[in-house]
Amino acid sequence: MAERYEIRFSGAGGQGLITAGIILAEAAAIIEGKHAVQSQSYGPEARGGASKSEVIIAESPIDYPKATRVNACLALTQEAADKYANGIIDNGVLLIDSDLVKRAPEGNFTLYRFPIIRTAKEEVGREIVANVVALGAMVALTGVVSYESGEQAVLARVPEAFRELNQKAYRMGFDKMKAIL
Amino acid sequence: MAERYEIRFSGAGGQGLITAGIILAEAAAIIEGKHAVQSQSYGPEARGGASKSEVIIAESPIDYPKATRVNACLALTQEAADKYANGIIDNGVLLIDSDLVKRAPEGNFTLYRFPIIRTAKEEVGREIVANVVALGAMVALTGVVSYESGEQAVLARVPEAFRELNQKAYRMGFDKMKAIL
Repeated sequence: MAERYEIRFSGAGGQGLITAGIILAEAAAIIEGKHAVQSQSYGPEARGGASKSEVIIAESPIDYPKATRVNACLALTQEAADKYANGIIDNGVLLIDSDLVKRAPEGNFTLYRFPIIRTAKEEVGREIVANVVALGAMVALTGVVSYESGEQAVLARVPEAFRELNQKAYRMGFDKMKAIL
Repeated sequence: MAERYEIRFSGAGGQGLITAGIILAEAAAIIEGKHAVQSQSYGPEARGGASKSEVIIAESPIDYPKATRVNACLALTQEAADKYANGIIDNGVLLIDSDLVKRAPEGNFTLYRFPIIRTAKEEVGREIVANVVALGAMVALTGVVSYESGEQAVLARVPEAFRELNQKAYRMGFDKMKAIL
């Protein structure tokens, strides 16, 4: 892993992207012992429907906790892709929901498409876990934490009654992304 | 309000302090139209039981999103008080749980004591809403958002079935803190 790795999850409010970011940060820091900062910044644009959540992971303490050189970005909606798929470094990666983002942003990054929301709805059985499908996919795509650390962090954060559902969502996102890579 | 206002919620993992921070940031930004950044940073110390969540609220865009001059700090446990009740500015405020923090940190801030966990358990009826009691208390203490904005943000974020419980927790925290001030 690079010394500092920046990941942005973007989509619509209510899609659980803050939780996805928190789980990833906890996997990296609490489970793998790295340093991590997870944040959301809200400006006047927060009043629209688009929302983002960012995670910075590093081997040493993080002095500047704002994402400015994004290594990997997720966009679950067209509005999020238009607003937040910026600041991605050359050779970075952008993952978009292939059903909901019809116009892919352009840039010197590698673009991946995956029907994340549809996978949550039809294959896991609940749209509400789309954020965890997305998390599994981002872990597969970036390798920034191990499969197992991510799974452990998912299980630590979701309510008991929903553990199995979330475990399935995480595995489905991870496996399907791996198959695309 | 000052141009930039920094609030830290600290306690133990699992106490819901990240959620309290997110709700406060959403009250300030989505409801009141200010700028806000909410973050958690995890270092090696995250492996212990202490946990913190920070919110910065400003009238203009926030360039440096790390809390360095804390205006108001909450500490729900002794370990959190020992670790995180630092960086509070002169004339800032520290609110501690009066049952759980026996040794109050010293500094040039005003100290307030309130049995937050006990209030949640005995007066609201569920310890799990201690974070929302704490949020109500911090809103009363700081005035950084209005009572109504905080309440609206609480209701927007909690599941339907728990709205009344959380509303009661928020009001109880706010009213009891006002009575102390």
